[in-house]
Amino acid sequence: MKILLLAGDGIGPEIMAEAEKVLAALALPATPDRALVGGAAYAATGHPLPPETLAKAKDADALLFGAVGDPRFDNVDRHVRPEQAILGLRSELGLFANLRPAKLFAGLEDSSALRPEVASAIDLLIVRELNGDVYFGEKGTRTTATGEREGYDVMSYSESEVRRIAHVAFRAAQGRKGRLCSVDKANVLETSQLWRDVVIEVAADYPDVALSHMYVDNAAMQLVRNPGQFDVIVTGNLFGDILSDQASMCVGSIGLLASASLGEGRRGLYEPIHGSAPDIAGKGIANPLAMILSLAMLLRHSGGDEANAARIEAAVAKVLADGCRGADLGGNMGTAALGDAVVAAL
Amino acid sequence: MKILLLAGDGIGPEIMAEAEKVLAALALPATPDRALVGGAAYAATGHPLPPETLAKAKDADALLFGAVGDPRFDNVDRHVRPEQAILGLRSELGLFANLRPAKLFAGLEDSSALRPEVASAIDLLIVRELNGDVYFGEKGTRTTATGEREGYDVMSYSESEVRRIAHVAFRAAQGRKGRLCSVDKANVLETSQLWRDVVIEVAADYPDVALSHMYVDNAAMQLVRNPGQFDVIVTGNLFGDILSDQASMCVGSIGLLASASLGEGRRGLYEPIHGSAPDIAGKGIANPLAMILSLAMLLRHSGGDEANAARIEAAVAKVLADGCRGADLGGNMGTAALGDAVVAAL
Ligand SMILES: CC(C)[C@H](C(=O)O)[C@@H](O)C(=O)O
Ligand SMILES: CC(C)[C@H](C(=O)O)[C@@H](O)C(=O)O
Repeated sequence: MKILLLAGDGIGPEIMAEAEKVLAALALPATPDRALVGGAAYAATGHPLPPETLAKAKDADALLFGAVGDPRFDNVDRHVRPEQAILGLRSELGLFANLRPAKLFAGLEDSSALRPEVASAIDLLIVRELNGDVYFGEKGTRTTATGEREGYDVMSYSESEVRRIAHVAFRAAQGRKGRLCSVDKANVLETSQLWRDVVIEVAADYPDVALSHMYVDNAAMQLVRNPGQFDVIVTGNLFGDILSDQASMCVGSIGLLASASLGEGRRGLYEPIHGSAPDIAGKGIANPLAMILSLAMLLRHSGGDEANAARIEAAVAKVLADGCRGADLGGNMGTAALGDAVVAAL
Repeated sequence: MKILLLAGDGIGPEIMAEAEKVLAALALPATPDRALVGGAAYAATGHPLPPETLAKAKDADALLFGAVGDPRFDNVDRHVRPEQAILGLRSELGLFANLRPAKLFAGLEDSSALRPEVASAIDLLIVRELNGDVYFGEKGTRTTATGEREGYDVMSYSESEVRRIAHVAFRAAQGRKGRLCSVDKANVLETSQLWRDVVIEVAADYPDVALSHMYVDNAAMQLVRNPGQFDVIVTGNLFGDILSDQASMCVGSIGLLASASLGEGRRGLYEPIHGSAPDIAGKGIANPLAMILSLAMLLRHSGGDEANAARIEAAVAKVLADGCRGADLGGNMGTAALGDAVVAAL
């Protein structure tokens, strides 16, 4: 299996180093390569997703991705900002389905901002569409009739875009508790109305899945009130971005959640849900567990290696159950020490 | 003062009746009138915001609004759905600034899904823009080149729209702890980039306010992790819809939060943050406190009657401190009993 490591910006390189330790410890017949991405690539080549990186990505079986985003480049042209690297990879590789599982690890009952009995019930999967929505519509700044600046971004979904993500979500629900909640804002948005109509059409193929619909404002509320009510949530790119970050905090730290971005084939991109965290970059205190759990997802989805995926996940769970905590969870173990602990637990 | 009562759908009429009790108990020289709105108006007249209602609204000094939304009309044409009534009032009356305060009432420390120490720290104000964004842009369903259905909605903000809401937010921050956090998604959206640029321009007029910026996904996370960090949040229509519902649950129940929608003058619309809750309508168990607190905001902002506004708020706080609880907070007091308790506490 050809694995491409894309460490990126901020804490990306530090946490990637720990995932590499874990990969090395497994001694798999995998040949990791690496490439520049994000602000790091922009600084070196003038583009956050240089052609060499894209070519390597297309050639790889799986991409392990750290994080992109660098405040030094917040004011450069939008098309060369660090974030364009991840948006470009998702769209160029057709990675339209983003799977973001959230579950409380044993031992972290008191780490969530939610009360322990609320947090313990969390075991959900957010399926976020990743190639459409207001992220990829026409956008720009124009001048209005009265001579003012106006920013605009077109939100849209076509039926085939909704249909393919709906199938992913229904199948995921079949493999879990059989409940799917589709989140939209159909009382206001035409894009959401089409989304809802198509999800209902697709539901006919999955009589064993219980489908419900929820407005996004209510979903944000329910994710605080009673997150245990959800099994699988399917939603668009923008709402998925917001709700999955929110859900991540319900389990104690955003430093614990991994994600998989998948297309039609086996190739996928795997990354922590958190960002590049420039404020703590270089300090050796970032939590590498989400990055390590992303490697587990990579082995499962692109490698078909359930055994090693489960082994990594069990090692992370053990490390947390043993009380190992980084700064994000009020402890004082550094990035490397946490990575070493996972390797030891393997 | 001419007050127009718009009870609307679902639990709207039940909770409005309790606000009316409170208004009557104050014996103000106010002449409340009433009009049909939402699904109730659609059923009677074929339009959720009939011309008579709009005319009365334009003539009123203040509008007290219950809730709209009725699942019986979820599939009628979008322009006559119940929700169009509130969207129409906001835009026809130029009510561009929605103030949504959230603070934990004493005695409710154990009612929030958040841990008591996290919930107790909440004292924030969300200033949500209400006349623009993807809510009011061009929208529809079109057929793509490949013959598919596609839904679309245009998100946009012009600089004057951002400027006027920014001024409201900066002034609100001056009257509070002097901190303003502007929430956007400027790493992806041009609309957000313009929003951020204009907010920074306006900041020059308010050197005494500390301005920060946060991406919406991070804000949704921070509102769970540490909501006490926020003083005033300013954001667009869509993000404000999501974040304010989320914040409301952090204080224990969405049945406790009121909002004011203001324009350039004194006229305002006042409504609970929650919706029409069709599932519990007619059962006499809806929490009327958000509706009653909306009346307090009405007296303060449109009536300039701080004394009576504070009197109502103190009465609600007393009722909660005394342990009165409806079904939403795990108690068994009904809608009318809660209204009576507030009147008694006045
Ligand atoms: C970096 C940013 C463009 C990205 C997104 O909004 O998709 C991130 O927040 C995420 O969720 O992966
Ligand atoms: C009913 C709906 C159109 C409305 C909105 O989205 O603005 C509601 O959710 C609100 O927040 O007042």
